[in-house]
Amino acid sequence: MKKHNFSAGPCILPQEVLQKASDAILNFNNDDLSLIEISHRSKSFVAVMDKARSLALELLGLENKGYKALFLHGGASLEFLMVAYNLLHKKAAYLNTGTWSDKAIKEAKAFGEVIEVGSSKDKGYAYIPKGFTIPADADYFHCTSNNTVAGTQIKEFPKTDVPLICDMSSDIFSRQLDFEKFDLIYAGAQKNMGPAGTTLVVVKEEILGKVERHIPSMLSYQTHIEKDSMFNTPAVFPVYVSMLTMQWLKDLGGIQFIEEVNTKKAALLYDEIDRNPLFKGIVAKEDRSTMNATFNLTDDSLKKTFDKMWTAAGINGLNGHRSVGGYRASMYNALPLYSVQVLVDVMQTLEKSHL
Amino acid sequence: MKKHNFSAGPCILPQEVLQKASDAILNFNNDDLSLIEISHRSKSFVAVMDKARSLALELLGLENKGYKALFLHGGASLEFLMVAYNLLHKKAAYLNTGTWSDKAIKEAKAFGEVIEVGSSKDKGYAYIPKGFTIPADADYFHCTSNNTVAGTQIKEFPKTDVPLICDMSSDIFSRQLDFEKFDLIYAGAQKNMGPAGTTLVVVKEEILGKVERHIPSMLSYQTHIEKDSMFNTPAVFPVYVSMLTMQWLKDLGGIQFIEEVNTKKAALLYDEIDRNPLFKGIVAKEDRSTMNATFNLTDDSLKKTFDKMWTAAGINGLNGHRSVGGYRASMYNALPLYSVQVLVDVMQTLEKSHL
Repeated sequence: MKKHNFSAGPCILPQEVLQKASDAILNFNNDDLSLIEISHRSKSFVAVMDKARSLALELLGLENKGYKALFLHGGASLEFLMVAYNLLHKKAAYLNTGTWSDKAIKEAKAFGEVIEVGSSKDKGYAYIPKGFTIPADADYFHCTSNNTVAGTQIKEFPKTDVPLICDMSSDIFSRQLDFEKFDLIYAGAQKNMGPAGTTLVVVKEEILGKVERHIPSMLSYQTHIEKDSMFNTPAVFPVYVSMLTMQWLKDLGGIQFIEEVNTKKAALLYDEIDRNPLFKGIVAKEDRSTMNATFNLTDDSLKKTFDKMWTAAGINGLNGHRSVGGYRASMYNALPLYSVQVLVDVMQTLEKSHL
Repeated sequence: MKKHNFSAGPCILPQEVLQKASDAILNFNNDDLSLIEISHRSKSFVAVMDKARSLALELLGLENKGYKALFLHGGASLEFLMVAYNLLHKKAAYLNTGTWSDKAIKEAKAFGEVIEVGSSKDKGYAYIPKGFTIPADADYFHCTSNNTVAGTQIKEFPKTDVPLICDMSSDIFSRQLDFEKFDLIYAGAQKNMGPAGTTLVVVKEEILGKVERHIPSMLSYQTHIEKDSMFNTPAVFPVYVSMLTMQWLKDLGGIQFIEEVNTKKAALLYDEIDRNPLFKGIVAKEDRSTMNATFNLTDDSLKKTFDKMWTAAGINGLNGHRSVGGYRASMYNALPLYSVQVLVDVMQTLEKSHL
């Protein structure tokens, strides 16, 4: 029996995608060759890359609006660097909402002045700073839409005239946003998109070409745009599985459909956290992530019992991030509502037997 | 029926590796979870990464000799940049033996003086330059061991006191060398090691830490060494399949065993190219690659017929690199001797029917 996989990432992917991916390793397109042993310049794979790039723009509603989609190497961690390399001329504004923002800030500092316009570091990143001011002369504003470690999510993005750059690694394709407000979106694949090893970058071309420094080929967005995301051999398998997952989402009804499911899943779990006296949420209610719900037991002595119970129920990946502890239920796009119900049932059983 | 896959890369992988990889996508380690939906920090995956790193050192005979093995993102193309970022203080010596050396040189030039100690660019890279001098005060000497596009291979590496750095993307694990002579070896996975999306770096720690420039986290070898190659989420599937392929090679008898097979395969094909009046080799005989044999028809009018014949024989990927044309038979570790025999048979059939 498949587990109820609440892993924070890499995370659950749709079962039909896994089946297709497994088949393609043995025989891709009925070509009597494995997906992973054909040339990335073959017609078969170029079609995969093109489809992945167009599906990304289509799902975000960004087709024919001056954006390019790229599938690059290096994860979001390399994007922390690439964003600064390509766009930081003099100074940039960053919002610090967690571990990942903090890392992005660290990498950017080597390239210019970094203004931290807001930070929730003082309270363990348990809320999203609001009411901050973005300098009008900043080269760009950077934020992290969803914070996997603390379990917070930006619900309203600031209005600003400077380019808006967002790390959406952990909530891309999970909710409707006015994506046209963003000038550059990036996302490591391993949450809602596919397996680890590729990174989606959606960039509005007009923001590029404005810094004077030399940009190494592999770090230049323009290099990758000019080569249709095939400057060097792409991560063939991760790109293919990302394509399959985006196609799965499109067939279901796209972001509009999945947002409804995600809202239901989050409501089911947060309602239980708030209702059940044995549990308490960790972050500010208005900033709670629909992707990653973080919570603690109100009585730590129940930890062993609770851990035994959810493990017995076939639940996987419920431990909090190693830097904070507690519990974290990650409810990405592919996690069924039923899995959340199983977790809620375990929480209620614990309550009945211990209160 | 599986094809005879002469693709230049991504390329053929062992059938038993493909089967295990396909199985792991559905159920890894009988954990009722897919390999690609578990945390990269899980015990199961950390064991994969550790095994991959130790197998790489073991196969190369570099255990306990001051080397670290890393599996990084970005392909050899990112290594062109990382080598220079981490090691180029004032000037470095490069040998230009083809497309990939040329790209490595281009990236390095932004970081210091690059001395091209030898080049075969004047003759379409159809030979390996010899008798060149490496300046004793160079920060390092960089070369490409095997040139996939032209089909040449360095048979003897220069003696030098400066650190020896080698891009072995297309012939790693294919032949015995005194690997201790090298200070840094890198190789994109997609030839003899695994699927595209991860890059092996084997580096002697003592050569690091000598440049003064700021090195961004993701580009610093020291970052990745400190984090046991898990600074950020690795390309889980490519690393896993690389581990399986290295284990397959070890079980067969390691590099010593496969070198014998590779020598037989290359001899079989080159003997036919030299014997058959309808074919001619392209590069200097003493520099011929055992991995990629490049050749032309002596009579171009036979092209259509030959192409039809090898396609009908179930052969895939025999066209030369798009930049040079002609034919290229890539005979990586996983290609059976039998596939080369099938190609030779087609060449002989062409001869019989047209001479």
